[in-house]
Amino acid sequence: MTDDSRDHVVPGSEEELASADVRGYDFRGEFDFGELLETYATTGFQATQLAEGIEIAEKMRENDATVYLTFTSNIISSGLREVVAALVRKGYVDVIITTSGSLTEDVIKTEKPFKMGEWDADEAELRERGINRLGNIYVPSDRYVWLEEYLYDFFDDFFADEKIRTPTAFARELGETLGDEDSVLKQAADNDVPVYCPALTDAEVGNFLYYYRQGYDSDVGIEILDDYDSLIEDGLLSDETGLIAVGGGVPKHHAIMTNLFRGGADHAIYISTGMEGDGSLSGAPPNEAVSWGKIKDEEKTNYTLIEAEATLVFPLLVAAAFN
Amino acid sequence: MTDDSRDHVVPGSEEELASADVRGYDFRGEFDFGELLETYATTGFQATQLAEGIEIAEKMRENDATVYLTFTSNIISSGLREVVAALVRKGYVDVIITTSGSLTEDVIKTEKPFKMGEWDADEAELRERGINRLGNIYVPSDRYVWLEEYLYDFFDDFFADEKIRTPTAFARELGETLGDEDSVLKQAADNDVPVYCPALTDAEVGNFLYYYRQGYDSDVGIEILDDYDSLIEDGLLSDETGLIAVGGGVPKHHAIMTNLFRGGADHAIYISTGMEGDGSLSGAPPNEAVSWGKIKDEEKTNYTLIEAEATLVFPLLVAAAFN
Amino acid sequence: MTDDSRDHVVPGSEEELASADVRGYDFRGEFDFGELLETYATTGFQATQLAEGIEIAEKMRENDATVYLTFTSNIISSGLREVVAALVRKGYVDVIITTSGSLTEDVIKTEKPFKMGEWDADEAELRERGINRLGNIYVPSDRYVWLEEYLYDFFDDFFADEKIRTPTAFARELGETLGDEDSVLKQAADNDVPVYCPALTDAEVGNFLYYYRQGYDSDVGIEILDDYDSLIEDGLLSDETGLIAVGGGVPKHHAIMTNLFRGGADHAIYISTGMEGDGSLSGAPPNEAVSWGKIKDEEKTNYTLIEAEATLVFPLLVAAAFN
Amino acid sequence: MTDDSRDHVVPGSEEELASADVRGYDFRGEFDFGELLETYATTGFQATQLAEGIEIAEKMRENDATVYLTFTSNIISSGLREVVAALVRKGYVDVIITTSGSLTEDVIKTEKPFKMGEWDADEAELRERGINRLGNIYVPSDRYVWLEEYLYDFFDDFFADEKIRTPTAFARELGETLGDEDSVLKQAADNDVPVYCPALTDAEVGNFLYYYRQGYDSDVGIEILDDYDSLIEDGLLSDETGLIAVGGGVPKHHAIMTNLFRGGADHAIYISTGMEGDGSLSGAPPNEAVSWGKIKDEEKTNYTLIEAEATLVFPLLVAAAFN
Ligand SMILES: NC(=O)c1ccc[n+]([C@@H]2O[C@H](COP(=O)([O-])OP(=O)(O)OC[C@H]3O[C@@H](n4cnc5c(N)ncnc54)[C@H](O)[C@@H]3O)[C@@H](O)[C@H]2O)c1
Ligand SMILES: NC(=O)c1ccc[n+]([C@@H]2O[C@H](COP(=O)([O-])OP(=O)(O)OC[C@H]3O[C@@H](n4cnc5c(N)ncnc54)[C@H](O)[C@@H]3O)[C@@H](O)[C@H]2O)c1
Repeated sequence: MTDDSRDHVVPGSEEELASADVRGYDFRGEFDFGELLETYATTGFQATQLAEGIEIAEKMRENDATVYLTFTSNIISSGLREVVAALVRKGYVDVIITTSGSLTEDVIKTEKPFKMGEWDADEAELRERGINRLGNIYVPSDRYVWLEEYLYDFFDDFFADEKIRTPTAFARELGETLGDEDSVLKQAADNDVPVYCPALTDAEVGNFLYYYRQGYDSDVGIEILDDYDSLIEDGLLSDETGLIAVGGGVPKHHAIMTNLFRGGADHAIYISTGMEGDGSLSGAPPNEAVSWGKIKDEEKTNYTLIEAEATLVFPLLVAAAFN
Repeated sequence: MTDDSRDHVVPGSEEELASADVRGYDFRGEFDFGELLETYATTGFQATQLAEGIEIAEKMRENDATVYLTFTSNIISSGLREVVAALVRKGYVDVIITTSGSLTEDVIKTEKPFKMGEWDADEAELRERGINRLGNIYVPSDRYVWLEEYLYDFFDDFFADEKIRTPTAFARELGETLGDEDSVLKQAADNDVPVYCPALTDAEVGNFLYYYRQGYDSDVGIEILDDYDSLIEDGLLSDETGLIAVGGGVPKHHAIMTNLFRGGADHAIYISTGMEGDGSLSGAPPNEAVSWGKIKDEEKTNYTLIEAEATLVFPLLVAAAFN
Repeated sequence: MTDDSRDHVVPGSEEELASADVRGYDFRGEFDFGELLETYATTGFQATQLAEGIEIAEKMRENDATVYLTFTSNIISSGLREVVAALVRKGYVDVIITTSGSLTEDVIKTEKPFKMGEWDADEAELRERGINRLGNIYVPSDRYVWLEEYLYDFFDDFFADEKIRTPTAFARELGETLGDEDSVLKQAADNDVPVYCPALTDAEVGNFLYYYRQGYDSDVGIEILDDYDSLIEDGLLSDETGLIAVGGGVPKHHAIMTNLFRGGADHAIYISTGMEGDGSLSGAPPNEAVSWGKIKDEEKTNYTLIEAEATLVFPLLVAAAFN
Repeated sequence: MTDDSRDHVVPGSEEELASADVRGYDFRGEFDFGELLETYATTGFQATQLAEGIEIAEKMRENDATVYLTFTSNIISSGLREVVAALVRKGYVDVIITTSGSLTEDVIKTEKPFKMGEWDADEAELRERGINRLGNIYVPSDRYVWLEEYLYDFFDDFFADEKIRTPTAFARELGETLGDEDSVLKQAADNDVPVYCPALTDAEVGNFLYYYRQGYDSDVGIEILDDYDSLIEDGLLSDETGLIAVGGGVPKHHAIMTNLFRGGADHAIYISTGMEGDGSLSGAPPNEAVSWGKIKDEEKTNYTLIEAEATLVFPLLVAAAFN
């Protein structure tokens, strides 16, 4: 019995594996940030995924791929706003896809900062004080009072000549009004980077457009097919495309779905906290998109998923691959 | 030292707690499903959350609240489609908010089923066989060939009189063409339940509208502000509202944001796999919405979060509260 | 361009898939719990995983496999304690592996219930009131005062003849002192089911043994190699083994590691909230154990993972497969 | 109606918040790693949690607290092994608590590296090739053949004078035999840092002790109460304690439970992927431990939770606070 069991317990193996040794950073000697991130490749688990992401991002740069950066609104709520703006300013981004909260919050931050807060706050008390909570970030309501005025002025100009406009036009013309160099919308406008946002109503923009239509001009409208055509053509006209999806949702899907038209994205990096087992688009790893033809399948790794909350890893990716 | 330590280790307590004893189902005697779910209230952890959700859903029914059902597209990919259709058919739903994949997939399923598949498939091989994977669900590509034809015919009618239409009109008129009693769109159309879907382009609908505009009529468009006004007014005109958010994303936010206009939803049940610590809208628990005034804060529990993958718990919620 | 793109977007597919149609429960007619769970097989995502788990559990029963039930301590904190006790009482369990908190909490509950509580409590206030919090469950500290007395009496007997004892002897002899039919330890003792618990010190048992050694008898000890031998032999002597791992940690690993000696477990059901991407044992899906030879790889599905919080699904599994 | 609604939608707020502005790293100018991590404090979400963790770790150092480092076995499987060894070598760690896999894997790595592998491997094929998979890390089985010999030799010495030994003695004496400066066990032995490991059987150590008892000496044993006493006294004798819990399970609980004797740990940093909502010890945030008296509650933040996979953040924490 024991002999049999030993074959199970210690089966042995002949083969020498050619892959790298697992080995972490050596904290002897002077600390070197670049070397630290290089050792992530052989640290295993998600550190290795981050190192893969950095390599893929470098490949996108080398090959001058059309880079799609997609992100959820809370990325702009957080300090990643400045990081995204830097990427756009430096010319590394060609297409942005996001949701509506990104737009309103980027505008507010040009004039009034968001404030650090607490996860476990007394919500009813916050409501009374007029403080809105986003995780551990607070947004006092006076920000929205200010925004309302700002947007009404903008709406007057935006709808002056045409009553039916698109989300990309909205983002571009709004960006042009802004003076803050750390604004994503301003940098996008200045660098001719389109900002796609099909569900434009789903944030304060929608709320204030509701009041605007009631109070000023009930004929204004937002049409979304034109933008979708443009986004498809952005892909069709590119020799090579690369996606950086920070979070999931509509922005991520918009990017992969329109890359389908050109036979799939050439490179893809997902940063996500989504759960694969819920069958959601947000949780779907890049290989699921291969079956749909939304990402290409290459010999060498051309896509990866970093399972992490973005504020922890996105600055590292940018520092390593785009600096 | 020891004496001191004992005060730390066994501090004692005087008070009798008034809350229920923790106690699970008693498997003696004949099994009773209703009793099982009742013991969930005192089972702890997420079972208790589900029991709370059932109680809140019953309250919504009793009080005849305007019920908003929001869900992500993968809900329709799964067998929850039939469950949602049943809820609508029985008159328990007043407002639906969803994403675009729900619409295309509901239509396909009226004619051609989705098939059970495997999580760990060879993606490149699936691509060659023309099989699209959604978690452990397969969608053969002939479904989309069929859908394309179906939609082109529909587009002709839909845009015949007006070139610029809304997502709710799209969903309603499309639903009217369907013959399957298990279709969510058909049941919604038959029961006058509006289906909101602001990011209508973000699925095959968008793809086929792109081709349609290229090949047939470049002037057609989808306008999204009208719908947002209606959704706000659905809330303003309600005496009492209740939200059931299955998954997160745009649908969930659309519901709570428009309830803000009326001072918050009166009841809310979230079913979600989202992570609170990523600061996302999808991961935000109901109490975060209280600080924004999107959900009301009552003495008695009027909202809850069930941390679970929806296919496991939504049928139980429906069986217990809506049957 | 467009023609090319259409091949990408609507590639078509020839093949008819033989697998089942995705289809959820039909809420027409009288509600039937058994049928509901059967439709879980074709509902997709985790519902399908639960249905697979039920099928595998039924196979274990049919084949009269040696059933290992492993669980973390919080399972006993919750109302699943009564469910586990029922399984043991009905003779469906052959080996239990758990952690130390399970033992202390099972004993306490024979005399004094745990109480329902709140997730978001004021911790410092709870500390002052002497109330310990376990998620949404409260354990007043008087429970531990009572337990201390109970255990000191028990220790006197337990160490009377031998100073060095094993965790399984501890669990068995402790179980024999208990009168509550809903006690897992009592049922295990009555039904000759060994309860393995290598890290016996890691809960109040350890704390009170510390005081006991200080105050009464410094020579008593707990030896853990004997138990490990027995556990290995439980596996070696079985024709067929089946694992039900509720949660991860030491209990889960103890089960799969000792099944390695016999060439792997024949069946395995994991219920877990663990994350695969962190490389942890708790998050590792069953297929990882196949590479180690800890679970056998069969033609037909003999293992599955249900990604869910256990209180939601374990009672359903028991109701369907063991009732 | 509208006026009313505007009060809901834009309630306004008077108060100026005193907390920091949310603001991310400024990628203008030369990149500076230290400054990057400082901006994490105002980046929000988990970045802020990491910054808090760094601050707490610095406080531990300043105050010369007794530092408990607890980690799960997969930390040693990964490249974090070298990082842990560095921390111990530099004298920053006073107590280690871990699980059994850490010990065997640390020993193997002194002679034979683990190799980088793939998450999605063909498990049955790996089994045939004798390759064990740990996430994206491969461990060829010849490592265990080598380890078996190494341990048998060690067992002869270890049990030569006394038959019943403790896990801490095991770890210390084993560490003394090792020559690799990157070994955690060697560094711990050299620096008089005790390594607690109550469930010593739960890895290959257990397997080989089983064979050893069968083939060589059936009387040897491992006793665990002595160690628990020592661990409690480590805490009682400390003026101030600080915990760094990398992952959960028995190691984390052992640390907080024994700190209870001294009235709670003074500082605590958790790095975890656990889920709070499952009521598990592993998922429990530090504030839950406050109700139990296992962590002290101070005016200023003395504990935090970083929700992240450890390979991503632990090297950053070490680089910032211990370098
Ligand atoms: N079948 C599809 O999923 C599908 C098909 C075509 C298009 N799309 C498009 O992809 C975009 C993104 O999809 P989405 O916004 O519908 O949602 P999503 O898939 O991005 O999910 C959003 C969040 O909801 C939660 N969630 C999702 N599924 C869940 C479940 N089963 N149980 C519990 N929680 C769950 C998760 O937290 C997730 O992060 C949409 O525009 C949609 O139209 C999706
Ligand atoms: N009530 C308690 O939890 C308690 C009480 C006293 C002592 N302890 C001690 O704490 C230590 C660690 O606890 P543990 O090893 O029992 O497990 P754990 O709580 O650390 O859980 C291990 C893993 O199991 C999974 N899991 C836990 N609960 C789950 C659930 N409800 N549903 C699905 N998956 C779940 C999770 O992935 C988790 O990471 C043990 O030594 C134990 O004795 C715990």
